[in-house]
Amino acid sequence: MAGKVFVSVSMSLDGFSAPESMEGIAATAEQREQDPRLDRWVAQWMALHAWVFPLRFFQENLKLGEGGEEGRDNDIARETFERTGASVMGRRMFDLGERTWPQEAPFHTPVFVLTHDKRDPWERPGGTTFHFVTDGIHSALDQAREAAGDRDVRIAGGSETVVQYVNAGLVDEVSIALAPVLFGAGSRLFEGVDASRVELEQIRSEPSPRVTHLTYAVHRR
Amino acid sequence: MAGKVFVSVSMSLDGFSAPESMEGIAATAEQREQDPRLDRWVAQWMALHAWVFPLRFFQENLKLGEGGEEGRDNDIARETFERTGASVMGRRMFDLGERTWPQEAPFHTPVFVLTHDKRDPWERPGGTTFHFVTDGIHSALDQAREAAGDRDVRIAGGSETVVQYVNAGLVDEVSIALAPVLFGAGSRLFEGVDASRVELEQIRSEPSPRVTHLTYAVHRR
Repeated sequence: MAGKVFVSVSMSLDGFSAPESMEGIAATAEQREQDPRLDRWVAQWMALHAWVFPLRFFQENLKLGEGGEEGRDNDIARETFERTGASVMGRRMFDLGERTWPQEAPFHTPVFVLTHDKRDPWERPGGTTFHFVTDGIHSALDQAREAAGDRDVRIAGGSETVVQYVNAGLVDEVSIALAPVLFGAGSRLFEGVDASRVELEQIRSEPSPRVTHLTYAVHRR
Repeated sequence: MAGKVFVSVSMSLDGFSAPESMEGIAATAEQREQDPRLDRWVAQWMALHAWVFPLRFFQENLKLGEGGEEGRDNDIARETFERTGASVMGRRMFDLGERTWPQEAPFHTPVFVLTHDKRDPWERPGGTTFHFVTDGIHSALDQAREAAGDRDVRIAGGSETVVQYVNAGLVDEVSIALAPVLFGAGSRLFEGVDASRVELEQIRSEPSPRVTHLTYAVHRR
């Protein structure tokens, strides 16, 4: 039986899944790294994901050590990882990650990157292989399903990629870790969603001390 | 002891607390009522508040009958009403309500309306009196606190009014009934919020079958 296609992201209370892009702020990576607005970018990104860093799963997965917290947040992070047989992500998310992930990238599965630029697969130590897909979202998802086998396919982000898949009716489930922060500006998770065609069914809502875990089934209408 | 100043609204998962304003769509109330886009407005508004209509409290408060559901949603709606000694609202929310509330308006307390137009207090049967405040948000809140006594003051909306009070550091608590709907467009609850000065502390997160009830303490930083 084929697995589900799901999204799992952290979102600010005002609907942002990432801070304002640094790409619009400065042209090159070097300029961005010297821009004082990078501090705000990092602070917002850290606030959004603050629930993840203390977790035992996170520390294990990035080989930071054997410590870290257990509990529901940890279980949910681990379940999300374990259900994922392959991921799909947009080019900008990959570009950012290519500069910032550790050598042993944290996916440990095939990852299909939507891009216009052909490139050979990029194999990392620890089981992550990035495949570059130039023929569209359906092709990337088909390849990811094939690679995932019985497990699920995660649409990893960014938000434009998520919305493309939601609008195409290809997403079964959206999970959101709703963080108690306001961004005011940034990249909105649901920007451009075709609300008239999407119906959500709340299937889980579970508080933790740091965030609220929300899961919705996504239906077409 | 003075009460708290709080906000309690329903919000779509993508951050909207009201559908797109009909004011931008047609100039007069009559034109708006004949505009086919009104159907979408009503459908979205109903979806956002769908959790409220079946409640016993709602049916009692609007004198629709003795029936309706009990349970946590009902308790939360009733507690929100009972803690409220006075409300503050913006002019557009009042204008819409003036055309649509029943004669016995659902507040049953003093309501202070922020406006530029002087007008005598408007007393409704059932204990709601609308007072029109022309000298700003601090004055309206002072009058509401005075009227509320020991009870709390609710900043009722719309979103521009909520954000004015949040940005001025005058709101202690925000409660959100997060509805499993996407709007795609409309009036964003936190549009224009000064995120750099507002810190949220998640103090409650409670699922119900229809929505997730979220409460945050609002701190300055």
